[in-house]
Amino acid sequence: MSRPIQIVIIGASGDLTSRKLVPALLHNHADGSFDQPVQIVGVSRSEKQSEAWRAELGEGMPAELGEAWSELAPNLHWIQADAATPEGIAGLRQRLGDLIEALPGGCRQRSGRLFYLALAPRLFGPVVAALAGADMLTCEPGDDEGWRRVVIEKPFGSDLETARALNRALLTYLREDQIFRIDHYLGKETVQNILTLRFQNAIFEPLWNRKHIESVEISVCETVAMEGRRGAYYDQAGALRDMVQNHLLQLLALVAMEPPGSLQADAIRNEKVKVLQSLRPFTAARVSRDVVRGQYEGYLDAHGVAEGSKTETFVGIRALVDNWRWSGVPFLLRTGKALSQRFTEVVLRFRTPPIDLLNGPTPADVCPLRPNDLRLLIQPAEGLQLGFLVKQPGPGMIMRHSELGFDYAQLGNGATPDAYQRLLLDALTGHATLFIRGDEVEAAWSFVDGIRAGWEEASPPVRSYAPGSRGPEAADALFHGCEGTWSTGP
Amino acid sequence: MSRPIQIVIIGASGDLTSRKLVPALLHNHADGSFDQPVQIVGVSRSEKQSEAWRAELGEGMPAELGEAWSELAPNLHWIQADAATPEGIAGLRQRLGDLIEALPGGCRQRSGRLFYLALAPRLFGPVVAALAGADMLTCEPGDDEGWRRVVIEKPFGSDLETARALNRALLTYLREDQIFRIDHYLGKETVQNILTLRFQNAIFEPLWNRKHIESVEISVCETVAMEGRRGAYYDQAGALRDMVQNHLLQLLALVAMEPPGSLQADAIRNEKVKVLQSLRPFTAARVSRDVVRGQYEGYLDAHGVAEGSKTETFVGIRALVDNWRWSGVPFLLRTGKALSQRFTEVVLRFRTPPIDLLNGPTPADVCPLRPNDLRLLIQPAEGLQLGFLVKQPGPGMIMRHSELGFDYAQLGNGATPDAYQRLLLDALTGHATLFIRGDEVEAAWSFVDGIRAGWEEASPPVRSYAPGSRGPEAADALFHGCEGTWSTGP
Repeated sequence: MSRPIQIVIIGASGDLTSRKLVPALLHNHADGSFDQPVQIVGVSRSEKQSEAWRAELGEGMPAELGEAWSELAPNLHWIQADAATPEGIAGLRQRLGDLIEALPGGCRQRSGRLFYLALAPRLFGPVVAALAGADMLTCEPGDDEGWRRVVIEKPFGSDLETARALNRALLTYLREDQIFRIDHYLGKETVQNILTLRFQNAIFEPLWNRKHIESVEISVCETVAMEGRRGAYYDQAGALRDMVQNHLLQLLALVAMEPPGSLQADAIRNEKVKVLQSLRPFTAARVSRDVVRGQYEGYLDAHGVAEGSKTETFVGIRALVDNWRWSGVPFLLRTGKALSQRFTEVVLRFRTPPIDLLNGPTPADVCPLRPNDLRLLIQPAEGLQLGFLVKQPGPGMIMRHSELGFDYAQLGNGATPDAYQRLLLDALTGHATLFIRGDEVEAAWSFVDGIRAGWEEASPPVRSYAPGSRGPEAADALFHGCEGTWSTGP
Repeated sequence: MSRPIQIVIIGASGDLTSRKLVPALLHNHADGSFDQPVQIVGVSRSEKQSEAWRAELGEGMPAELGEAWSELAPNLHWIQADAATPEGIAGLRQRLGDLIEALPGGCRQRSGRLFYLALAPRLFGPVVAALAGADMLTCEPGDDEGWRRVVIEKPFGSDLETARALNRALLTYLREDQIFRIDHYLGKETVQNILTLRFQNAIFEPLWNRKHIESVEISVCETVAMEGRRGAYYDQAGALRDMVQNHLLQLLALVAMEPPGSLQADAIRNEKVKVLQSLRPFTAARVSRDVVRGQYEGYLDAHGVAEGSKTETFVGIRALVDNWRWSGVPFLLRTGKALSQRFTEVVLRFRTPPIDLLNGPTPADVCPLRPNDLRLLIQPAEGLQLGFLVKQPGPGMIMRHSELGFDYAQLGNGATPDAYQRLLLDALTGHATLFIRGDEVEAAWSFVDGIRAGWEEASPPVRSYAPGSRGPEAADALFHGCEGTWSTGP
């Protein structure tokens, strides 16, 4: 049996812990993913008894996790501490050591320890500094099996400058391979499968370039409007920083990257960062033309939203990737709240066949039929759809658009695991592929900052749109000529 | 309304007429495919009253054809005549003229007339000569709307020499564009769709060549053994001549052909004949290695089979197409009777990805996983399946083989039309695309004759196989090295 590991959730009183982290760890335990004793320690300034915490968590526990819960619950512990202060950290250090020694094979000097920072972003730096000050981020010299890692929740900075500062602060005390910057989108099965699809198969990659693909659309559409207490944070951030900087650009990087030399974390992340760095930076003029921002009607009434706020709840972007593979192919990005449908989808639209044998040359004023697209359904539908033309059975040659389809449910594997389940397991085993490297974060912020600077400079309108609509109509113009229009979802 | 047409089935007492031709014409009528009056005339040496014929045909009429039948039945007529003799033909000419004049707008000089030769192959030449002798294969001079066409059922010859002779005989009296050599496989929706799939879509053609495809398999598997009275014919022919020369080589031609310059019949048939002519001719040595013939146990007891017959009821062929697109790609052809499963299928197996990022270089003694194949399901299943690898949801990177699927039933168009429905309509409207041109037939016979010569010369074994099995095991060796093996059907 490997030596025990301790998962230390700092900021455990937030709902991420009860809603995502603890259930994910229980699922991992139930799947047999742990071959070592595991301790889960909640840390917060709030006073709470471990027993009370277990009772809280156990309350809504679904039946299928009952056994895992009864096995794991005794290893859940609550520690009251202010992790941003030296005194708080000193106590924490003492308690964590005591707890790990209580485990079979446990030894305070020799263990794996994951600090999960479920904290307000401003505390990331101070808490890491405090942990380092108490010598908690390094193992005993010569302890080859021990490790210390830190998971950082989003948002990672609010622009390039703050992200750089945070990277610098973290790297003062940690090696890059100890830092796990989370974007839960990367933990989704359907997102991981983008790489599988592209690089474990032989049939997609030959088509996956500017010669065959006319445009790429990435949509993350939400039906929800402002959620409860998030208003104040969201109103500071907006859709561009809250969604595009992380989820949409991460999807873009996975779709657009070159084949990596290996599946090592850095081999993949090297390719992703290359794509992000190849995004054409925005000028104010291009922002006015190629970016559309919108705000749903009623947003100003939401809790925490500033009076007269111009924060965007919708953003559409016509982006370009200036590299050999994608030059000239528009990447159409869209995300928004209070839209008509909830779905995340990537659509690769293929160019038309070189000639239309059936109908002859297309007249100049008519858009030719585009027979083929590949839809990667990310959520809530999970699958693939490859659109193609087929002859309608019967006399004559009437073409019908149809689809070659695949649904993850076909694999008969039950429910798709939650993203956090995979991400926590990867962090515990030191697999960094599905986490964002420092330079990726910075490249993404650099792109986003260019758009914000354009907004600042040119003040393009914030288009209002009706809740439950498809977003502002102006976003339709981001598709040019015969390129088609936004997907209406699966 | 166009001028009336007369469909003259010579040899109408065979079951093709009642089982296929008349139902197909009724379906066409029910679909509204005829905008002119249509007369169906059965011709045979057997004596029969038209009323009696109608009664026979009407008996098994399915309910959905009731209306079409009651409309069309009065236009069905029986003529007793021996069409191979000048006297028989003279009477036939007179009667056909009288009948057409009875139709609204009918005129004996001006009409469209289709002669459907549902005859023993030895009668094709004599009957066409007799029709020509009575001046029945040309229209009145200056009658631009009139036409005379002849449909020839299979088999078209029994080797290259007889096929050439038959072509010569037909072309003495007919232009090539009046001759409609039938292979009912070409009328199947799923077969017509091979061209649609390839040339109305942009995503398949870039992959459709030796660079991306490792092998092509074409299987026409039957579960039936000898059917009733066919024994004597079949024992003379064998699987090679009965199935490969027409159905399998036609499928091969459609799968392998270059994009045509247009959808005109001759543009397509020019490309098909190029493929057939590019098939590498067999030597005796290659026949022994790359062709496997088999006979199911019990065949010798079937009605009409000669004692000690060596006729093959199974044949497997590793064929090569020596052209720029396909050089080196094996085309694995297989057909047989009394097999375990009935299906017709084309499988394109794609090469493996250039590297396996997940598992690293494949050891020399292990076959690499082939993730991708495209299955064209021709019958009885009708659809497409594109095999690919997907990550099994859950921890780790476990690959699962799955499929993007399409089923023609998805089009919600009801039953797929029977092949004869399309073929008759095309013959009536003069569309020859789905009929075989004289040079195609000859190229196919040339290939088949090479195999038969090899059998003659080298006498390779006729492998026996159990009815209900997958055929002779020796056929498995037609796949080499890591190429995989025969499909087990959908």
